[in-house]
Amino acid sequence: MVSSKDVAKYAGVSQTTVSRVLNTPELVKKPTLEKVLKAIEALNYVPDANARSLVQQKTKTIALLSGPLHNPFFVDTTTAIVNYATEKGYKVNVQFVNDENLTEAYATAIGTKVDGIILSCILYDDPIFNRLQEMNIPFITYNRKHRNNEQFVEIDNFEAGYLSAKHVIEQQHTRLSWVGGPLTVSTFKHRYEGFLKACEDHQIELSDAYILQTDTSKKGCEDALAALLELEEKPTAICTGSDSIALNILDHATQIGAAVPDDISIVGIDNVELSQHGRIQLTTIGSISEHNLGLLAIERLIELIENKKNSCINITESVKVFSRSTTKKIKRR
Amino acid sequence: MVSSKDVAKYAGVSQTTVSRVLNTPELVKKPTLEKVLKAIEALNYVPDANARSLVQQKTKTIALLSGPLHNPFFVDTTTAIVNYATEKGYKVNVQFVNDENLTEAYATAIGTKVDGIILSCILYDDPIFNRLQEMNIPFITYNRKHRNNEQFVEIDNFEAGYLSAKHVIEQQHTRLSWVGGPLTVSTFKHRYEGFLKACEDHQIELSDAYILQTDTSKKGCEDALAALLELEEKPTAICTGSDSIALNILDHATQIGAAVPDDISIVGIDNVELSQHGRIQLTTIGSISEHNLGLLAIERLIELIENKKNSCINITESVKVFSRSTTKKIKRR
Repeated sequence: MVSSKDVAKYAGVSQTTVSRVLNTPELVKKPTLEKVLKAIEALNYVPDANARSLVQQKTKTIALLSGPLHNPFFVDTTTAIVNYATEKGYKVNVQFVNDENLTEAYATAIGTKVDGIILSCILYDDPIFNRLQEMNIPFITYNRKHRNNEQFVEIDNFEAGYLSAKHVIEQQHTRLSWVGGPLTVSTFKHRYEGFLKACEDHQIELSDAYILQTDTSKKGCEDALAALLELEEKPTAICTGSDSIALNILDHATQIGAAVPDDISIVGIDNVELSQHGRIQLTTIGSISEHNLGLLAIERLIELIENKKNSCINITESVKVFSRSTTKKIKRR
Repeated sequence: MVSSKDVAKYAGVSQTTVSRVLNTPELVKKPTLEKVLKAIEALNYVPDANARSLVQQKTKTIALLSGPLHNPFFVDTTTAIVNYATEKGYKVNVQFVNDENLTEAYATAIGTKVDGIILSCILYDDPIFNRLQEMNIPFITYNRKHRNNEQFVEIDNFEAGYLSAKHVIEQQHTRLSWVGGPLTVSTFKHRYEGFLKACEDHQIELSDAYILQTDTSKKGCEDALAALLELEEKPTAICTGSDSIALNILDHATQIGAAVPDDISIVGIDNVELSQHGRIQLTTIGSISEHNLGLLAIERLIELIENKKNSCINITESVKVFSRSTTKKIKRR
């Protein structure tokens, strides 16, 4: 059993410093904090939960690790999470996390005295999941989930990908493209798998050139569209891994004069608030209930914190097509 | 001179409790906290700044009181503020504030141990301004400013309103409408005054029925548009108090089949990221530098906190028209 003494030795600091990192990390200088956190990670040290809770008073603070707000899904969820938590008397420490700052974001969240953590940024194989479980901090993931299949709120991502392809196939499209995000995260992985299955079930042949993985940035989406439009035989419909990707592609298509849906159909997934704007009217897949995933998650997290419930959280919302004006039936050629 | 003893007596609590409210408010129960905060306010008690700083350690936490994210201006600014502060090693407690929860938001922010406060929600005549100054907490307002004309970052709101009207007047519009927000806040007040001045300078006669003040909600904006379109002599151009209002009106106009700009021109103010989307292409007024006001403000606030600068902050960014596709020249009738 690794002790705090071992951590102190490994990090080259005193035991008192280790204790301060665990209990008042906001008062520890960053280099020291990082040294100790690294040692904790290297030795896989798990502070005794009881000892920890004895010294840790409730802070009435929650850490929110959200995706960036240029993705409108996180506009909707951050609003719901912060407003609900505020109403319940919690302060919310917000960080916007992307692939570049993931490790640092985790270090800050773990190294901060909070009552619970709500995060969207988890990878499917993320080691943080076990660490959070071991540290005995109430936490929940929303949108994305971990391979362990615990502590999450999501939409049925496989079905969302499936319905996305099925929708345009029913509109007689046969040249389908997929523009998604990294398959290291559950949302993009399962949405893509659903898309593939629908194509398979409907005998749609997929060209390799039609399957693109972006980093989900505006630039990445623009490049993906440009690559598709350069092909001799262009796809007639683009199924995307998220509304954010769809909106970026719709933006660029409009700017370069490709008519949507006349030249090309576009489908999103998430049914974000913005997709319903009169000028956007994005066809998309979203939860039937139209529940805000952020709200579902923060409600559960606060129940966990306040010990009203202790059960494992495992929520998958059913989905349907929201057919708007970025998709259109074409004549089969 | 009011002492903490007076506050304790007024609130019916012990002096220790008052001290706890000042120093570790997160550990004080909400009813007690509110009782003490009310007493502090009623007696106009100002804690001794030196005494306060002796007991208060740096928390490396900043309180952000932002407007709601359904206003895309706050999407852009919240992103910039949170990301910059995170990068500099600060945690950010975020609250989304509207007229209904303003008082409570202030109470939470003041009653929390933070190194500084950054706020957009301040009213032009807000008593919070003097309170913040007296409490000796570094703070800055962005977007809106206080009548005192100190500690703010804004765009030139008067000029923005002026240019908004001037732009459509130069496009031969003579039936101009103004749809703004509450005149209790500097942005809407000064933008409206600029709009009026431009109309005066160009001998545009304004009909009372064309001047509408909304609560800036989606519903409020829809009602405003509906009222304008019901008039026998409809306006041909709507100048709005913000991009958020303009986008709501554009949304509703599109949904009810009013063509923009063919039937009606719309101008925003703020030049938010979303106004540039291919499907939106909102004509708007924004800062020439295209600096993010949130970023300008958080940079200054952290300078204040870290005592690198002590000067009064007073930044007004110059503005220009970003002419896009929601405005159009009409033939003078």
